[in-house]
Amino acid sequence: DPKLKIFSLSSNRPLAEKIAAEVGVELGIVSSTQFSDGEIKINIDESIRGAHVYIIQSTSFPVNDHLMELLIMIDALKRASAKTINVVIPYYGYARQDRKAQSREPITSKLVANMITDAGADRVLALDFHAPQIQGFFDIPVDHLLGAPLLANYFLDNEMLQNDIVVVSPDHGGVTRARKLAEFIHAPIAIIDKRRPKANVAEVMNIIGDVKGKKAILIDDMIDTAGTITLAAQALQDAGATAVYACCTHAVLSGPAIERLENSIIQEVIVTDSIQLPEEKMSPKIVQVSVSQLIAEAIKRIHENRSVSPLFQEKFT
Amino acid sequence: DPKLKIFSLSSNRPLAEKIAAEVGVELGIVSSTQFSDGEIKINIDESIRGAHVYIIQSTSFPVNDHLMELLIMIDALKRASAKTINVVIPYYGYARQDRKAQSREPITSKLVANMITDAGADRVLALDFHAPQIQGFFDIPVDHLLGAPLLANYFLDNEMLQNDIVVVSPDHGGVTRARKLAEFIHAPIAIIDKRRPKANVAEVMNIIGDVKGKKAILIDDMIDTAGTITLAAQALQDAGATAVYACCTHAVLSGPAIERLENSIIQEVIVTDSIQLPEEKMSPKIVQVSVSQLIAEAIKRIHENRSVSPLFQEKFT
Ligand SMILES: Nc1ncnc2c1ncn2[C@@H]1O[C@H](COP(=O)(O)O)[C@@H](O)[C@H]1O
Ligand SMILES: Nc1ncnc2c1ncn2[C@@H]1O[C@H](COP(=O)(O)O)[C@@H](O)[C@H]1O
Repeated sequence: DPKLKIFSLSSNRPLAEKIAAEVGVELGIVSSTQFSDGEIKINIDESIRGAHVYIIQSTSFPVNDHLMELLIMIDALKRASAKTINVVIPYYGYARQDRKAQSREPITSKLVANMITDAGADRVLALDFHAPQIQGFFDIPVDHLLGAPLLANYFLDNEMLQNDIVVVSPDHGGVTRARKLAEFIHAPIAIIDKRRPKANVAEVMNIIGDVKGKKAILIDDMIDTAGTITLAAQALQDAGATAVYACCTHAVLSGPAIERLENSIIQEVIVTDSIQLPEEKMSPKIVQVSVSQLIAEAIKRIHENRSVSPLFQEKFT
Repeated sequence: DPKLKIFSLSSNRPLAEKIAAEVGVELGIVSSTQFSDGEIKINIDESIRGAHVYIIQSTSFPVNDHLMELLIMIDALKRASAKTINVVIPYYGYARQDRKAQSREPITSKLVANMITDAGADRVLALDFHAPQIQGFFDIPVDHLLGAPLLANYFLDNEMLQNDIVVVSPDHGGVTRARKLAEFIHAPIAIIDKRRPKANVAEVMNIIGDVKGKKAILIDDMIDTAGTITLAAQALQDAGATAVYACCTHAVLSGPAIERLENSIIQEVIVTDSIQLPEEKMSPKIVQVSVSQLIAEAIKRIHENRSVSPLFQEKFT
């Protein structure tokens, strides 16, 4: 369809190229550069008048630059009479600032949703928001895809992980996600139940569920500094798990993450390519599965006015 | 007044401290840090409920970080029930992207104005927008101060510059600004009239007005890479000016700026502190005059519901 155009910004061009190939179009021609003083300059070098435009951009590190680049692109498309502006955000940054936990805290996740909407986006396609409630932060349609089915495929294809497995959530907040993965791979679940007996005393990790003699698969939406996941892995080993795998949708991997993962007892870390990994984060323990097919399928369905929701329910292959 | 609070963000704390001192209040307690992955975290450590809050923040380099910090602060203040949120922007970044000069260009300056408004700002106090029309980009009240009167004071106090002077605009766009400065210091004006005879041929600099045997004072709203101003200075010398001074409100000074200024025939560059100059930009040729008193006076007037406009008309001392 000549009216469907996909543009990549700077955050994850390899993923955007795969998505465009799956959809069967060439990436649109856009350049994003900086003026001498660091201000972003966007040049769209082909006509987009009347087109349904999809922008692929993760608001990953450096988050403020990637976000601003996205907003400027939306502004340029709007003023150039794009028919619809569809923002594909494989990784949505600032997602963890999604509530006031203390006095005078911002809710930056909502602020960013408003910024994207007010700039002129018509629709958002996202993957594993930190909390599903973030969908409601947008006053425009949001399709929210899940990484768990893709991660499940990896485990289903792994001969070592056909039985005696247990899916483990590293905290209470992630139980629904663990439940989903467990259904796909036909495994029971367990939960790590953290508790701080007193302030300034180390947390106690209690495991709810049966992990002894089993291969444990930890799942989270993101691995950032990898503190939570490596401590959880150790607790699982201490409780008798025979091997520990970890998986997540978003490989944020900031600060000491790679070092912690490499020094941990975790055998393999399965992540998606929602965030482009720089060379120095390509640890031999990390396995990437691509979300390109899933996102491409969603784009095709949106463009054909077909429901995207089957992609959430079923195993995606 | 206990209900007036001034907070400084990261871009220009020295200026914010001077402003607070002039107004006669302590700066509010806020910390802005980054999480491990680079996301900004703001903590406001004192009650602001019901207060009239003034945030001092220039959207100078790194512009996207300083802008995002400002927006997050506005969001936090709004949710913490500030009575009014007044944004003081001594230097407004992205100002030069203020119109579509070519197809499919964004108007980032308007986008940023909307972002600040939509985040929850009630009022903006700014200094020398690149174009006065940017005032109209905001759907909230804007008070727009001028740097020229402050720069004028510097020249009026300089014994070397009492006669045989001419104020020069480096391009057509800046004639109004040059006219203003010229009025304050009782001097005639001249204009540099650039013309490119053919594409890819060097510009010809023609000078409209009389500069021979005079001390020329170039004025612009900002000096960024200093290309325009150093070429203009050379053209003035070639036309018989006996000395060339340069002045501007916003010392952006990116890329080769310092080197160009130091290697140029310009004697002195008078700038304001709307942008905080890092150590490495403190050239001996640069003289800073502070906008703190002007901004403090404007804040006091706004807070007392008095008109700010006298500050634009008259010489400010
Ligand atoms: N970029 C970030 N890195 C680390 N922690 C964050 C970040 N953004 C927010 N947080 C904190 O993470 C917590 C929310 O995470 P969660 O409890 O997993 O929803 C809050 O205490 C936030 O202050
Ligand atoms: N940060 C920047 N650095 C240099 N040039 C810019 C910047 N932002 C915009 N411009 C360009 O400056 C021109 C507008 O400047 P002016 O003609 O002085 O209003 C336009 O051609 C813009 O593309």
